[in-house]
Amino acid sequence: MTGDTTTRTYTVTGMTCGHCVAAVRQEVSALAGVTAVDVDLESGRVTVEGVGVSDLAVQGAVDEAGYEVTG
Amino acid sequence: MTGDTTTRTYTVTGMTCGHCVAAVRQEVSALAGVTAVDVDLESGRVTVEGVGVSDLAVQGAVDEAGYEVTG
Repeated sequence: MTGDTTTRTYTVTGMTCGHCVAAVRQEVSALAGVTAVDVDLESGRVTVEGVGVSDLAVQGAVDEAGYEVTG
Repeated sequence: MTGDTTTRTYTVTGMTCGHCVAAVRQEVSALAGVTAVDVDLESGRVTVEGVGVSDLAVQGAVDEAGYEVTG
């Protein structure tokens, strides 16, 4: 067993268009353990489902894409 | 001789970020005859240098990228 699946939602600022959404989705999806990523442009909400995925890893991936987790 | 090099500037609306700029630059650069493309996000100005490049071709490429030439 590798742990329970968790679903966490983050608020990301700076996304302005569909390309931004795609960039965030791509970086976060590439994290080890991530099984699903949903990104909503309007609200800036990013929902991450996975096993053993840390907040820090998600923050790092969002930063990598050029945006910031603010909540 | 294939014709003179022309430089024309267009106004494109809808670009909101660097990814948009890259998408427009990529589509317009791919047009036959285009030798240089400059895209300014702030002003929406797209400058196209090339030989035998029609306005219609540029409009088509911008549309293909998901934006619109409005001037």
